[in-house]
Amino acid sequence: MNKKAFYDLSYGVYLCTSWDEGRPVGCVANSAMQITSAPATIAVSLNHGNYTNKCVADTGYFAVCVLAEDCDPQLIGRFGFYSSKETDKFGATPWKVRGKLPVPDGVKCFFSCKVVDKMETATHTVFLGEVLDADVLSDGTPMTYAYYHKVLKGRTAVNAPTYQAEERTEGRYVCKVCGYVYDGDVPFEQLPDDWVCPVCGAPKSQFIKQA
Amino acid sequence: MNKKAFYDLSYGVYLCTSWDEGRPVGCVANSAMQITSAPATIAVSLNHGNYTNKCVADTGYFAVCVLAEDCDPQLIGRFGFYSSKETDKFGATPWKVRGKLPVPDGVKCFFSCKVVDKMETATHTVFLGEVLDADVLSDGTPMTYAYYHKVLKGRTAVNAPTYQAEERTEGRYVCKVCGYVYDGDVPFEQLPDDWVCPVCGAPKSQFIKQA
Repeated sequence: MNKKAFYDLSYGVYLCTSWDEGRPVGCVANSAMQITSAPATIAVSLNHGNYTNKCVADTGYFAVCVLAEDCDPQLIGRFGFYSSKETDKFGATPWKVRGKLPVPDGVKCFFSCKVVDKMETATHTVFLGEVLDADVLSDGTPMTYAYYHKVLKGRTAVNAPTYQAEERTEGRYVCKVCGYVYDGDVPFEQLPDDWVCPVCGAPKSQFIKQA
Repeated sequence: MNKKAFYDLSYGVYLCTSWDEGRPVGCVANSAMQITSAPATIAVSLNHGNYTNKCVADTGYFAVCVLAEDCDPQLIGRFGFYSSKETDKFGATPWKVRGKLPVPDGVKCFFSCKVVDKMETATHTVFLGEVLDADVLSDGTPMTYAYYHKVLKGRTAVNAPTYQAEERTEGRYVCKVCGYVYDGDVPFEQLPDDWVCPVCGAPKSQFIKQA
């Protein structure tokens, strides 16, 4: 099996949110898709290790929020590389309840869903959700996973369905928190001391030089 | 519910193939995604009205083939807008057995899968398949559904999960077979008589002027 084939599947970049006893929780998801339009139904795949998975299973509700290319990349860093179990991801993010689910400001659109079925795999749950409400909140081009990797130089969280252990490394500076690889024109050492990771907001001290 | 939100989900463009008592069958799918990498597992959504759905259910095997931006667009026309029940889609397409499944020449890569679970909705089945084999067969950028719509001016098959009855119409010439909308620089009337639909190969006589 040539694992490089998996890089050719196309995805968007989404936030999947839910509630944890009244507290908003969420994580980044890239495996989400519409299953049917009658009634409108969406599937999303969440790792068993994602705290949001437990909350979706417990409450029976989730929202899928589409990120646009020009969204605040710290949304990806905060929701993609920390756990809602220990982190209040919504604490630093303005958000509203939309369609009964928590939706961070700055997302392009949302779908609030009620779980109607699910399938388990060794590592992930596929939740099938009937869409209760949906709306477009801003302009902008929906971010694809390819754009996230190529343009934002984003990395893959270990919990993602698309994570493969053998991701290539280069002689660049890497954020220990989110894996963002810095390769800007200004040498990393010359960046100002208050420079932060554009993806997750970690300080310069959290970067290490790749071998 | 604002149905325009559904246009913001990102997809690739795929062929899903299977066997019908030894005969190769297949259709276009845009709802396919990796669910986990351990063991590698893919989900694909197929309409109950697609003959390929029945064949995947009967045999328990399917392949997902990724189309590249520079693929022969007639692959989309042939596999997307005809039924394998009446049409030998592989008759006009060179193909090989790869990973025990039929794979048309000219696709970018393939995943051959064994069905391990499925979920039913009112109109579609979500098949969960463990990947038995996968390979990259050619270079090229994977085609996204957005590229198909924007660049190839492709339309959505009625059986697709993403089909919405209210798709916009314009005063252009439309292929009655596949829905391709001609809006080239040369007026449609001045195209040569042997011009054919670039998507499905239908002759000029199959085009009608949109209201």
